[in-house]
Amino acid sequence: MIYLDNNATTRIAPEVLDAMRPFLEERWGNPSSLYAFGSDLQRNIEKAREQVARLIGAKRPSEIIFTSSGTESDVTALHSALAQNPDRKHIVTTAVEHSAVLLTLRNLASKGYEVTFLPVTRDGLLDLDTFTSALRNDTALVSIMWANNETGVIFPIEKIADAVATKNIPLHVDAVQAAGKIPIDVHRIPVTYLSLSGHKFHAPKGIGALFVRRGVKFTPLFWGNQEMNRRGGTENVAAIVGLGKACDLATQSLAEGSDRMTQLRDRLERELLAKIPRSIRNGAASPRVPNTLNVSFEGVESEALLLLLNEVGICASSGSACSSGALEPSHVLTAMGVSKGFAQGALRLSLSRYTTEGDIDHIVATLSGIIARLRG
Amino acid sequence: MIYLDNNATTRIAPEVLDAMRPFLEERWGNPSSLYAFGSDLQRNIEKAREQVARLIGAKRPSEIIFTSSGTESDVTALHSALAQNPDRKHIVTTAVEHSAVLLTLRNLASKGYEVTFLPVTRDGLLDLDTFTSALRNDTALVSIMWANNETGVIFPIEKIADAVATKNIPLHVDAVQAAGKIPIDVHRIPVTYLSLSGHKFHAPKGIGALFVRRGVKFTPLFWGNQEMNRRGGTENVAAIVGLGKACDLATQSLAEGSDRMTQLRDRLERELLAKIPRSIRNGAASPRVPNTLNVSFEGVESEALLLLLNEVGICASSGSACSSGALEPSHVLTAMGVSKGFAQGALRLSLSRYTTEGDIDHIVATLSGIIARLRG
Repeated sequence: MIYLDNNATTRIAPEVLDAMRPFLEERWGNPSSLYAFGSDLQRNIEKAREQVARLIGAKRPSEIIFTSSGTESDVTALHSALAQNPDRKHIVTTAVEHSAVLLTLRNLASKGYEVTFLPVTRDGLLDLDTFTSALRNDTALVSIMWANNETGVIFPIEKIADAVATKNIPLHVDAVQAAGKIPIDVHRIPVTYLSLSGHKFHAPKGIGALFVRRGVKFTPLFWGNQEMNRRGGTENVAAIVGLGKACDLATQSLAEGSDRMTQLRDRLERELLAKIPRSIRNGAASPRVPNTLNVSFEGVESEALLLLLNEVGICASSGSACSSGALEPSHVLTAMGVSKGFAQGALRLSLSRYTTEGDIDHIVATLSGIIARLRG
Repeated sequence: MIYLDNNATTRIAPEVLDAMRPFLEERWGNPSSLYAFGSDLQRNIEKAREQVARLIGAKRPSEIIFTSSGTESDVTALHSALAQNPDRKHIVTTAVEHSAVLLTLRNLASKGYEVTFLPVTRDGLLDLDTFTSALRNDTALVSIMWANNETGVIFPIEKIADAVATKNIPLHVDAVQAAGKIPIDVHRIPVTYLSLSGHKFHAPKGIGALFVRRGVKFTPLFWGNQEMNRRGGTENVAAIVGLGKACDLATQSLAEGSDRMTQLRDRLERELLAKIPRSIRNGAASPRVPNTLNVSFEGVESEALLLLLNEVGICASSGSACSSGALEPSHVLTAMGVSKGFAQGALRLSLSRYTTEGDIDHIVATLSGIIARLRG
């Protein structure tokens, strides 16, 4: 199997699974207990909190709340920001957000909120002037993704955060596709909330985290005594420890640089575009997370392409796994103005640290034949 | 170690962990993918959904939504019911609910909802006439627990459901402490929503389920395409499979009857109350889940008692782990009218299928000495 769908989910790193095992097998107590078998686990949770904080540059581990997913982190941030600003009814976001944010905000738009869905350029970039001019006195919240899940394109979060901070508006950043892939420094960049998801960088499914800057008034989505009264529910200790370990591994990878992955991805892009006629890259070449390539082949249906790739053991997607089954072309490519003929033939290839030179060779060798067959 | 805090959390059953392992180690794909490595996992999720449905008597697996916890199930049910009835502003619940429900409803009470927190009797029971007379034309929702987490006392859910159904009010039942311990049949009993939590009956932490009766209009808390558009977020496959297996094991245990556990618990109760002066049982002897005993020792501080028990390797609690650290006496015992002198000396002992005769012998032999020492 050649797995090139790491933006959908990733393999749990063996080191992560090793770190989790004791908490699944032996140390299964409740951390809120008074006896040592339970309360000792608090230390493991706090260690993981430090590991998450370190990955994103948070100066205080207490700024990290563990959640069950990137989606929960997103929803919690939106909920908290709006609950803290009940009189403001305007929200700014983009047309290319992940469905966790997009569908939540569309629902709010049907409940009396006015939501500005900002357009992006043909390259999937966000124009800063367009962004700044959307901010209003009654803007309750800005929610912007750091990196796009379909194209990998990176938004200028530093400049966005500076613009938002001068207007005293809370900023939520969905960093689910950025965390672990590019350096993040929330100490330097004044975001209010930042969401991440473990299973996008080799932690298990079912664990996420939300950064909430110290001093920000917070309204829980799940009331309860856990997580410093910010997220009720028994702590998922094994998954929390796994997330901590995955953050450690990612921090280490980032320190070493992502040249290898960038080179693999760039070679894949170069060779596919050279070998296959009527093919284009979707989204800017840069700034882009190092693991993601989105290409389109005119006159090809993504679904048929993915099924043929499946037959030869290649796992890839047409865009977000969260909207597979949907037959409409991607909302991201549509917002970018990609023509229907190309948007329907999109292929997202997303690498991980486990991707090899051989994987890239194999897909380059295989894909042009498959495309020719589909077009024939 | 003698673990008698199974209402706080339970050991993951070895059979459950065995069922989960392949999905942590090898089969880590995203179930929403088009390739087989991901989409094949849908079958495992659907099998687990059937196993959960079977445990609670749901006729249609599609009535089950997987969540991350009992707390998320509770909050989702409350959120959905209120979103579907935005003009009704009255909620009925009891004073002894778990904090996941209680704190959520207290927050809603501060936001314009009128919440009736029904009292309970000295035995922790709910008076049905009191309950019925609390229902109003503007009641948006009734939320009642099936079994109390601190005392194990069972509420008359069948009669409650019948009363609520005649008034066309949605009924949420928090069955977190009932599921897997007593038979539940949502086909026969007309509850609208029912919450359960895996880690209370030998599934891992971080997984729960919500029953939503077919035909009930549902508003998601997390928008997204997963779970038939009812709960966004990548499915936590390993934990879902684990929950399914734990439901299977519980269904089997319930079919065999709970005589052994009831006998162990009853002997524990009888011998402790006989040997230790100024001790009482909190809550009715019956109806009560078979695994739970709540006793109070006058003139003893629970916290000191728990620490001494910890020293001799006995894990127990004073009530909910979710409010440990809180120094006030339990809200459940307070609502029951237990005097402060007794409420401060409460001890909850909760058994599991792994509890042995020897465990019971040991705690009976140990506890009277510890109580005498604390009183001395």
